[in-house]
Amino acid sequence: MIPEEIDGKKLKPFKGAHEDHGGGRKAGPPIRAIADNKTKLRSSLDEAIDDCNLKNGMTVSFHHHLRNGDHLGNMVIDRLAERGLKDMVIAPSALFPVHEPIVKHIENGVVSHIEGSMNGPVGRACSLGKMKKACTLRSHGGRYRAIQDGDLHIDAAFIAAPLADPNGNANGRGGPSACGVLGYSLADSLYADNVIVVTDNLVPFPNYPWTVRGGNVDHVCRVENLGDPEKIVSGTTRLTRSPTRLLIAQYAARVIRDAGIMNEPEFSFQAGAGGISLAFLDYLAEIMREQGVKADFARGGSTKFMVDMLEEGLIDYILDLQCFDIPAVESVIKNPRHIESDPFTSYNYHTKGNLATRAKAAVLGATEVDLDFNVNVNTHSDGWLLHGTGGFTDVCDSGCTIITVPLLRGRVSSIVDSVTTVTSPGELIDVIVTERGIAVNPKREDLMENLKGSDLPLKSIEELRQTAVDIAGTPKKPEYEDRIVALIEYRDGTIIDTVKQLKL
Amino acid sequence: MIPEEIDGKKLKPFKGAHEDHGGGRKAGPPIRAIADNKTKLRSSLDEAIDDCNLKNGMTVSFHHHLRNGDHLGNMVIDRLAERGLKDMVIAPSALFPVHEPIVKHIENGVVSHIEGSMNGPVGRACSLGKMKKACTLRSHGGRYRAIQDGDLHIDAAFIAAPLADPNGNANGRGGPSACGVLGYSLADSLYADNVIVVTDNLVPFPNYPWTVRGGNVDHVCRVENLGDPEKIVSGTTRLTRSPTRLLIAQYAARVIRDAGIMNEPEFSFQAGAGGISLAFLDYLAEIMREQGVKADFARGGSTKFMVDMLEEGLIDYILDLQCFDIPAVESVIKNPRHIESDPFTSYNYHTKGNLATRAKAAVLGATEVDLDFNVNVNTHSDGWLLHGTGGFTDVCDSGCTIITVPLLRGRVSSIVDSVTTVTSPGELIDVIVTERGIAVNPKREDLMENLKGSDLPLKSIEELRQTAVDIAGTPKKPEYEDRIVALIEYRDGTIIDTVKQLKL
Repeated sequence: MIPEEIDGKKLKPFKGAHEDHGGGRKAGPPIRAIADNKTKLRSSLDEAIDDCNLKNGMTVSFHHHLRNGDHLGNMVIDRLAERGLKDMVIAPSALFPVHEPIVKHIENGVVSHIEGSMNGPVGRACSLGKMKKACTLRSHGGRYRAIQDGDLHIDAAFIAAPLADPNGNANGRGGPSACGVLGYSLADSLYADNVIVVTDNLVPFPNYPWTVRGGNVDHVCRVENLGDPEKIVSGTTRLTRSPTRLLIAQYAARVIRDAGIMNEPEFSFQAGAGGISLAFLDYLAEIMREQGVKADFARGGSTKFMVDMLEEGLIDYILDLQCFDIPAVESVIKNPRHIESDPFTSYNYHTKGNLATRAKAAVLGATEVDLDFNVNVNTHSDGWLLHGTGGFTDVCDSGCTIITVPLLRGRVSSIVDSVTTVTSPGELIDVIVTERGIAVNPKREDLMENLKGSDLPLKSIEELRQTAVDIAGTPKKPEYEDRIVALIEYRDGTIIDTVKQLKL
Repeated sequence: MIPEEIDGKKLKPFKGAHEDHGGGRKAGPPIRAIADNKTKLRSSLDEAIDDCNLKNGMTVSFHHHLRNGDHLGNMVIDRLAERGLKDMVIAPSALFPVHEPIVKHIENGVVSHIEGSMNGPVGRACSLGKMKKACTLRSHGGRYRAIQDGDLHIDAAFIAAPLADPNGNANGRGGPSACGVLGYSLADSLYADNVIVVTDNLVPFPNYPWTVRGGNVDHVCRVENLGDPEKIVSGTTRLTRSPTRLLIAQYAARVIRDAGIMNEPEFSFQAGAGGISLAFLDYLAEIMREQGVKADFARGGSTKFMVDMLEEGLIDYILDLQCFDIPAVESVIKNPRHIESDPFTSYNYHTKGNLATRAKAAVLGATEVDLDFNVNVNTHSDGWLLHGTGGFTDVCDSGCTIITVPLLRGRVSSIVDSVTTVTSPGELIDVIVTERGIAVNPKREDLMENLKGSDLPLKSIEELRQTAVDIAGTPKKPEYEDRIVALIEYRDGTIIDTVKQLKL
């Protein structure tokens, strides 16, 4: 299934979730001297870009702290285009619909392809075969690993910094573009050949905490506007009102209770900011109160729901990679128990310890799950590549990884014989929760045993699949061209699957 | 003066304070995998050492956060001896009199030589030619650079951690061995092949702030006692009562006032914890109050004197590498404006920006200064190597570097024709302050100009030298053997001087 080589790059096929044991040495970034960088304040983004001496085919990166409110990504790529640069590789930590203008730059040859993450319009362009080379999709931890290990060399990293000082010390804790946490840029700041901090809020030295350290920054420049505050974080995050989603969330919380996970020592968990995740937090909080249990930590993305649990004392610490709403931003600024994390500490597979493996339970969404418990979060059943991997593959290393999916979305089943794309191998997936039943991975005999006697609607994954088929029939498979347009890179650098160009 | 090669190692001679412009790439530490390091808690220091698989001739490191109260250095070397290991290279960030037992292990062949810092008894052993190879003396920033650049490869780093959790997240902010700041171990934690966190105070995960990050730590072990609390930090730091030293301190503060340095934008300064430095802080605070001036930051070593200035509002931030007394430890724990630093951020020369170059003035002691303003902090005029470099060479990059020395110590002059050992080149030294007069480096015409009209006793360096000769005569030069026993490495990796074995 995985070719030996693509676009001249040798590929290592996936061998198993824990079969990679490291080896070799990390990348060495260039050595600069203090004498040569006394003034790093540039008059404009243009001057900073010119100082990077970019050439055709080089790789530039940016990050998704400003989410769908980000202005910087498009600003940078427009300027690469103005300079007549071609075949540039874009290495974002994630893309959002706001980055649709990249499609135009793919079409006009400024951008060759994407290394890292795609979604929406750019993913669609990939599925249509518009990129010059095969893209690589990586998880947040996989991206850190790839940069750290030298697999992904970044020539210039542009870091959108809501707060920065003239030395480049930067964080996300204030200003018009405040986003709270700024950790996704860590690998780029450490390893890129050129590191540019771009801010709309230059403050006096020392700007602390220095999430991005000035000692790693070559250039600092000001822009009028880093982003659109309304789209950077939500004002408030609201619970889903869908009865199906509420039921799924409740089941997920009850799995954690009934399997005894919250009564084991060092209980901790991870949940995101999707509709089901927020409702899950709400149910979990209720159960924790009833049982008099508290969690040592919760891993964010953080929201008001998680912050409320922290302030109530249900959680000792939030270890956070992303603030989704204003209450979360305010919390990370003021509460010393709301700790800023980064993909090295949270997710990196090539490390001596990360947070993901410490979490006792994690709740995650997906587009598809199959009979082997493989999970797809990248493509839809119709073959379109529409989502980045996010932290998915990394989080799956938790003690009990629970996938929450509506059994059907419209007339499309989420449980399939074989997923369209394998994002994460079934061996790491422990429980599938749908509104019509819950399937435990048979490999987790301990969980099966612990859940005996629970009044949860336990089913086999085959039963869930059959229920979906009975209601919606067997979906039509998409048709593909031969060309591979994207590689799904596993967190250890092996290739777990490929995505082909759609035949339309 | 500098040989091309020593013990098979090629040497690069010093070329000038700012003549090194970097180049090449930083060292790449080994890549490990999360799957292989789920339990890093070892039952004992012995088990941790065994897991490092040490061999003859390897390099082990430890740090001086626990100062003269440190037990770990001796514990580790005793265990290397028990295992029959020979020719080990010891790479401490500094040594103290408590480490005298190393001399025995040099004599019995367990230890070959020292890379980094020496003082007192171990320095004496070096001067006597007891080491197998030439030692290298580095500043704190130079040590970071050497490890970062791969010039100093550390096989096993032992980090004494007053607070640590089972993942290896460590800091110095509590427990019986609390030392406040723990930044000297940063390079070792990032680059060493094996990183061992040793604690007498294991706390639950997550131990935050993670000055040492668990993701960089291989092994965690407990010992009964990391150190002797009474010798780790002083209960209180006391001002000197010596009229000579008080006068020197007052002159130094008045230089900063009269040269107008404290009225320029972004005033900031660095001072240590020696008797003159403390008195200098006291005088400086008085002047700052009179003039209504405050400093953007002060660089520590911190003491009660600096903490009082912070709390009074005379300083906005302390950027700190070392807490010298209990009030300083308490301050770094509780005051968010007392910021923990490390040699990368403070001192590294191979960086894109450090704190030392930002400081507008620095006050430092020395053993000797010569007519070219070269400074010696390593040897005495009798040739004995008795002191490590500390941050000296790094701090000399401040806007106005002031050396405070009593003109005479006993019958020995501090101002000499030519220093016994060059630690820092005269081009970075701006002012020499003695109790009998103040000499400004003639290269600093701006300072000369600004100090015109001051009532300070300004003299030429030659006048100061003559005054000393008139009182104490010309001192006898020490006699040396041919053998070079130590290299004085400049912060950029070049060799600025050598120390020869003493002829006794």
